[in-house]
Amino acid sequence: MSNQVNRQMHLNAFIMGTGQHLAAWRHPLSQRDGVFSISHYKQVAQIAEKGLFDALFFADNLGLQPAPPESRAQNANFFSLEPITLLSYLSAVTEHIGLISTVSASYLEPFHLARKFASLDHISNGRAGWNLVTSATDFEARNFALDNQRDHSLRYRRAAEYAKIVKGLWDSFEDDAFTFNKESAQFYQPDKLHELNYRGEHFTVKGPLHIRRPVQGYPVMVQAGSSEDGQELAAETAEVVFTAQQTLQDAVAFYQGLKSRLAKYGRREDELLILPGVYPVIGKTEQEAKAKYQQLQDLIPEASGLLLIHHFGLDVTKYGPDDPFPELPHSEGFQSRIKLLYELALRENLTIRQVFQRVAGGRGHWTIFGTPASIADQLEEWFTNFAADGFNVMPPLLPSGLSEFVEQVIPELQGRGLFRTAYEGRTLRENLGLKRPQNQYAGYTSNTF
Amino acid sequence: MSNQVNRQMHLNAFIMGTGQHLAAWRHPLSQRDGVFSISHYKQVAQIAEKGLFDALFFADNLGLQPAPPESRAQNANFFSLEPITLLSYLSAVTEHIGLISTVSASYLEPFHLARKFASLDHISNGRAGWNLVTSATDFEARNFALDNQRDHSLRYRRAAEYAKIVKGLWDSFEDDAFTFNKESAQFYQPDKLHELNYRGEHFTVKGPLHIRRPVQGYPVMVQAGSSEDGQELAAETAEVVFTAQQTLQDAVAFYQGLKSRLAKYGRREDELLILPGVYPVIGKTEQEAKAKYQQLQDLIPEASGLLLIHHFGLDVTKYGPDDPFPELPHSEGFQSRIKLLYELALRENLTIRQVFQRVAGGRGHWTIFGTPASIADQLEEWFTNFAADGFNVMPPLLPSGLSEFVEQVIPELQGRGLFRTAYEGRTLRENLGLKRPQNQYAGYTSNTF
Repeated sequence: MSNQVNRQMHLNAFIMGTGQHLAAWRHPLSQRDGVFSISHYKQVAQIAEKGLFDALFFADNLGLQPAPPESRAQNANFFSLEPITLLSYLSAVTEHIGLISTVSASYLEPFHLARKFASLDHISNGRAGWNLVTSATDFEARNFALDNQRDHSLRYRRAAEYAKIVKGLWDSFEDDAFTFNKESAQFYQPDKLHELNYRGEHFTVKGPLHIRRPVQGYPVMVQAGSSEDGQELAAETAEVVFTAQQTLQDAVAFYQGLKSRLAKYGRREDELLILPGVYPVIGKTEQEAKAKYQQLQDLIPEASGLLLIHHFGLDVTKYGPDDPFPELPHSEGFQSRIKLLYELALRENLTIRQVFQRVAGGRGHWTIFGTPASIADQLEEWFTNFAADGFNVMPPLLPSGLSEFVEQVIPELQGRGLFRTAYEGRTLRENLGLKRPQNQYAGYTSNTF
Repeated sequence: MSNQVNRQMHLNAFIMGTGQHLAAWRHPLSQRDGVFSISHYKQVAQIAEKGLFDALFFADNLGLQPAPPESRAQNANFFSLEPITLLSYLSAVTEHIGLISTVSASYLEPFHLARKFASLDHISNGRAGWNLVTSATDFEARNFALDNQRDHSLRYRRAAEYAKIVKGLWDSFEDDAFTFNKESAQFYQPDKLHELNYRGEHFTVKGPLHIRRPVQGYPVMVQAGSSEDGQELAAETAEVVFTAQQTLQDAVAFYQGLKSRLAKYGRREDELLILPGVYPVIGKTEQEAKAKYQQLQDLIPEASGLLLIHHFGLDVTKYGPDDPFPELPHSEGFQSRIKLLYELALRENLTIRQVFQRVAGGRGHWTIFGTPASIADQLEEWFTNFAADGFNVMPPLLPSGLSEFVEQVIPELQGRGLFRTAYEGRTLRENLGLKRPQNQYAGYTSNTF
């Protein structure tokens, strides 16, 4: 079905504590304190690398979600280690796999962010990726002296400026600026240093960054926003887009829509990879897969399930869990996640309980069941129909769900020529088939040397 | 001479690129691009751990020091990798050694700092330490939207508030809050969660931090300020103080002065360790040590030497390098580093060149030469006279200067019973002999469980 020779999937391992499922930590196979355990993450990272995944991908948030005390205390996935710290550690115990972290542009000075990712890229020898998000909750804002989150469109205007600054800082030195010449005492060529001197609407940053240009030029730029603003920012600046799509039809529409926005920024379609999330439940038989799915569903405390809907952006406290899923109040902006649930409920005529059970695993992402061959079939169908350039794989349980994927699904995909059998490149950028960006200031030097 | 049985030194390995000396990167033994090389830092860390050092200690700054282009380009030590990223990596390739990083309280939100260090402490299994500094230059301020650095006393008032917030966030959960009970679906006990709800003069932070309390309770609290404000803040909150002292007499006075401030904060003298910096030049003979010292001095470009004085806080451009060191203009506050130089020049009647040569190595710290036995003698003299509880060892060259110290000086100190022959504890705090702080909110729970 592919119209492209040798087109292969890209796969990220999306890592959330001991698994994507809300109740993963309660499962008999889970390390109950795994979310805080570095040996757990080390094991997960090494399994993903054995499976030749392009990258590890960590989500992030900046606070503890508010909720009634008892149901809040049932949720392991409200907790995390700080992802850059974690990925820096993991860079020491892996060799090839990419290291992508979400970091919000809302509350961290761009100078700090540019520096952290430049360091991670050097430390890992070119394996860093940054998932740019803006923080969209009030509870996070309150940890940073604000009473409420910023307005949606303001967040995106700030983020666009932020990304520009960060790239400018990464370009502080040209690639060949550092001569390290002991004899002449010249550590770098001064004319290949570029001060940023940025003064914008939201930020003022002088620069330069006191670090060599990242190995990849820029760490790989990832985004996850599916709103109108989010797609536009992605079309301008992202190289990988992480999206939640429930059906092939929707996924194809999103894929075509986003790719078609690229031309106006002078970009080719292969300069941006679209990787929907997928929540795979793998069994030796279809029956076993369904049973595994249900085993986790039965571990969801009801209060936590309702809380989950709440965290998607809808207050359902006035309904019973077995009432039909209610219509959404009118709102604009970031609510694309809750809209997905509403559309799901409408399409399949689901109750609130049925929705939270569906959400507790994939969290609004595409959920698939089956044997390894069936899982591979479903991924292949999306891939060959240009609904996806690959996937963010979100195992229900970690590490077991990832091991199953690596041992059973990856060989299926490899057998079909859909996935690599060895890492092609040295850097994340090379493995993703993305070009290394040139230094934007490299043409503007005076040649005093 | 010691009045304390079995009192032993604590030693940190102070790591600056390829060595403490300004011209270290030009030395034949140096890896010329070592400052950006993770394999370099890995080697250094493993040597320090082999030597049973208490901790690695990284300095930090937040920008590239301004200077005339040619002399600026001669300085490798203006560059660094971001130290938390680096220490997270190094935690994966070491087992025992502590991991201390300088992080400025001036431009990073306290929520981020608390989270980073809590993560590092978990990842390293209790080996993190935070050297709290405030940023004292305009060039750093300009990377964070300010035109100039904040006033000295404002910086310290902010820092005191900052430290309080960070500790409050680390105390978000009591030590036994996390029950990880799969059966009851209780991940933690809600009554052992404490929201910070901090509203102060400079910061507003709601909390809680969404991470388990650090392994050490708090990462070890380090400070380096020797000004009046700095000493007072240290007496209140620091557990390790890093100081620059040139003579035994001054060091004893500083030691006694700072220790005597502790009582008013209800602290015992052994709750704060004072570790002066020491720049050791080790030779098989005194002559060889002197020759090694001179070899590095001869590698200092004159422009870089003058620049160094400038960076200590004094403009000497109107003098020739062989003029006597000038008197200081009257000023207050953070200028303790330049005062040290002035006192040194006065004491020994030095020219500007002689001062920058002295500074280019130890950078205002105590410089000692000699055979391993002589180095050990000098350290012992300070230690047994209560000028120090140990030292921040600043090798001229890395890794070679550190290897020499580990292979030649450490056995001398061990032979005299002055240094450990194996790590005593599991955490940095245990190795330093510091108590684990209790959670400040642990008494204030309601027992609803």
